[in-house]
Amino acid sequence: MFNQRWSVACAAIALPLMPAFAFAAEKTGMSSEGIFVLELILLLVVGRGIGEVLEIFGQPAVMGQLIGGILLGPSLLGWMWPAAERLIFADDPTQKSMINAVAQLGVLMLLLLTGMETDLRLVRRVGRACFSISAAGVAVPFALGFIAAQFMPDTLLAAGSERIVAGLFLGTALSISSVKIVAMVVRDMNFMRRDLGQIIVSSAIIEDTIGWVVIAITIGIAKKGHVELGSLAFTIVGVAIFMAFSFTLGRRIVFDAIRWTNDTFRSEYAVVTVILAIMGAMALITDLIGVHTVLGAFVAGILVGESPILSRHIEGQLRGIITALFMPVFFGVAGLSADLTVLIDPQLALLTLALVVIASIGKFGGAFIGAEVAGMSRAEGIAVGCGMNARGSTEVIVASIGLSMGVLSHNLFTMIVTMAVITTLAMPPTLRWALRRLPMGEQEKKRLEREEIDQRGFVANLERLLVVVDEGVVGRFAAYLAGVIGAGQPT
Amino acid sequence: MFNQRWSVACAAIALPLMPAFAFAAEKTGMSSEGIFVLELILLLVVGRGIGEVLEIFGQPAVMGQLIGGILLGPSLLGWMWPAAERLIFADDPTQKSMINAVAQLGVLMLLLLTGMETDLRLVRRVGRACFSISAAGVAVPFALGFIAAQFMPDTLLAAGSERIVAGLFLGTALSISSVKIVAMVVRDMNFMRRDLGQIIVSSAIIEDTIGWVVIAITIGIAKKGHVELGSLAFTIVGVAIFMAFSFTLGRRIVFDAIRWTNDTFRSEYAVVTVILAIMGAMALITDLIGVHTVLGAFVAGILVGESPILSRHIEGQLRGIITALFMPVFFGVAGLSADLTVLIDPQLALLTLALVVIASIGKFGGAFIGAEVAGMSRAEGIAVGCGMNARGSTEVIVASIGLSMGVLSHNLFTMIVTMAVITTLAMPPTLRWALRRLPMGEQEKKRLEREEIDQRGFVANLERLLVVVDEGVVGRFAAYLAGVIGAGQPT
Repeated sequence: MFNQRWSVACAAIALPLMPAFAFAAEKTGMSSEGIFVLELILLLVVGRGIGEVLEIFGQPAVMGQLIGGILLGPSLLGWMWPAAERLIFADDPTQKSMINAVAQLGVLMLLLLTGMETDLRLVRRVGRACFSISAAGVAVPFALGFIAAQFMPDTLLAAGSERIVAGLFLGTALSISSVKIVAMVVRDMNFMRRDLGQIIVSSAIIEDTIGWVVIAITIGIAKKGHVELGSLAFTIVGVAIFMAFSFTLGRRIVFDAIRWTNDTFRSEYAVVTVILAIMGAMALITDLIGVHTVLGAFVAGILVGESPILSRHIEGQLRGIITALFMPVFFGVAGLSADLTVLIDPQLALLTLALVVIASIGKFGGAFIGAEVAGMSRAEGIAVGCGMNARGSTEVIVASIGLSMGVLSHNLFTMIVTMAVITTLAMPPTLRWALRRLPMGEQEKKRLEREEIDQRGFVANLERLLVVVDEGVVGRFAAYLAGVIGAGQPT
Repeated sequence: MFNQRWSVACAAIALPLMPAFAFAAEKTGMSSEGIFVLELILLLVVGRGIGEVLEIFGQPAVMGQLIGGILLGPSLLGWMWPAAERLIFADDPTQKSMINAVAQLGVLMLLLLTGMETDLRLVRRVGRACFSISAAGVAVPFALGFIAAQFMPDTLLAAGSERIVAGLFLGTALSISSVKIVAMVVRDMNFMRRDLGQIIVSSAIIEDTIGWVVIAITIGIAKKGHVELGSLAFTIVGVAIFMAFSFTLGRRIVFDAIRWTNDTFRSEYAVVTVILAIMGAMALITDLIGVHTVLGAFVAGILVGESPILSRHIEGQLRGIITALFMPVFFGVAGLSADLTVLIDPQLALLTLALVVIASIGKFGGAFIGAEVAGMSRAEGIAVGCGMNARGSTEVIVASIGLSMGVLSHNLFTMIVTMAVITTLAMPPTLRWALRRLPMGEQEKKRLEREEIDQRGFVANLERLLVVVDEGVVGRFAAYLAGVIGAGQPT
């Protein structure tokens, strides 16, 4: 009588009733904490729900969180039912800064995770090819975006912001690919171990790494409000010193701090706190240099990810809550700030279309040229170009920062978000199409088969078993089994 | 030349420099996001650092987080260096609500975890004894606290708050033991499997469960500002309906939602999001009933914890970030609100001392009477009384809510926090002393030995191995080893 489907249906019905519920509650008076909780639930459930649907269609789930935020904002909910939207996502600054605090902590956590997943060893292994691809792939769209900003109508500029600063932001927003989304499609297509797949992913990694430095410097300039040689030099020198320090002494300090905490502390999860403290400290340093906290969090992530004793267990713990809580809130809040209803204006709609075209041509063209320079075939170049055209999360972060600093107008922000959604959703099908055209070479096939065998036989020839296990049930069981085997063999 | 100790020393030196750093940065202008990050780092590092020191001395680490907040607030930092404290923990409401948002999300997450760890099966197994202990253990200190509030000086009342409402809060704050801290000491002393240990822990569990309902109703009354029969009846009926719904239909919906998500969704960590959404939805319901969000989060935790398919993996993910991030921030923010400098006033110091005495006598006496009623020996009754006198986290949560609602004055809040710290720190040594006096009976010894053997021999007599493994390296290795064993035995 009462089955699973029924109770899921219950929950599904409850969801659209929530705004109504909240509206009814206005009379009884909902506490500011209640509104905060309601905002969180809506962003989580709608964002991840749409993300799930996108994932079924082979699209990145993160776009669902952004689209969820757009639908809950002025674009849909606020357009259909302004009173509910005003009540839930209130304009009151104290209320607003609550959800913003979670989003800001979220973007730091997201960059920590991005850094942890940035595998610079892959880049070293792949070598030269990805450098020309990423250099051309960043330079061409950046230049196009900067030029486009010089010709856009005055109405798109934020009040009091200089055209040249807006141009830097637009150029940056057009030029950085999203590693996460590129890697997802490449893995999906089983290209992760193939040469081309590794070239595409490592190009995206380099773009991202360069990208955060470019973004940091752009923000440093934007904070002054205008380009000034002295402060520009200060910012660039500051970033250079920070990067140099981080990858020498800083790396050592991070490794030692994690190891020392792990060996010494009795408190539960002390290492996780230390990782968060490192993230915070480095974010603070970049904030004090005058660039943005995101650069510090990203570099902290790279260092933490390279730490020799970081277990998969700890990484999984951070990844779980970041994926399940912080990312949906951050992208949801970004979506809330976009107002797609402005695109009803035909001029803005046309300009947005132009932005999509400029972004795609710039990115595809730049990456394709880079691939040609590296001596790759035309078909491979097309695949590289298609792969790099996913902007996804990075542009949204850049645009959010630009909006919050008052450098981008609300309309330009909406246009950039729309562009990011369209180019990101277009990328998986085009890359799939381009990769399907590329059969495997004879030599590559042999290499993959050899690697496969190496992977499988990892304990086949051991005479002495040394098992490192974690504390879980499975770990204890593995140790037990190892004991059984060991007893039956000469050790 | 450059060793581990050296770089730890670097980090240790950097820490006290942080406020100075921030102070210097005031000239260059730190962004509001930078201040937010600085607050987080300080609360995390100081709180968990002191917690580690306490843990070495056999004290609960959570008290360190509270003490850390106290030291960073007006009690020490603000007293020694007011300018730095004003800069970092600014009074600006928008800035303040950022760290408060994390603390509020934190208390919900903390109660989710508390609920997940609430093992009602243990209570059912132990049975009758714990009911009389917890009933008397709550009733006596509640009554004493309520009476004490009727005689305290007017200056301790918050402006515009009724004495009777403050009395309800004070009574509640005196009456709830902290399961987490009790369980920690009992586990430390190796009493977790012994009868007495199980009675103590399950009494604390019942107190906690009753406690959150009492707190919810108290808050419901406090929101009206005065006791009124109609609204009191509404609150009690509302809570009763909520509890009845949660443990019947609600339990079923929660189980099914988790199972359905786990079976259906492709997105990473979808179950974690669903758990958070359930927590949010139930918190919202209790908020709309007019009691506080904490009750909903706690009940959600109980239901989620009972879910049959909840893996230890998911629980570990939530526990990691809650322990490493949300708890230190919540207790730190609570500590920031306390101002121990007011205790220089001899009258307030004496009143605080009186509060500690009343709280201890009430709690010890109540639990001891309950143990006598249940027919336990005098020595056992003393151990039960000592164990129940740890208030820890719960009172701090109650007091924080009372302060934020304007029911408790700042001075009374400081007194309650001081009382909670003192009674909690006094509990581990007294309980250890009381337990050490209790040798094991003959019958109990036999039961424990039998259980020990059952536990150890869990695969000794298997003929067929069925291994359930997770995706990690250890898991794959366990599966491999199981295959090796299986091959050498008749299956």
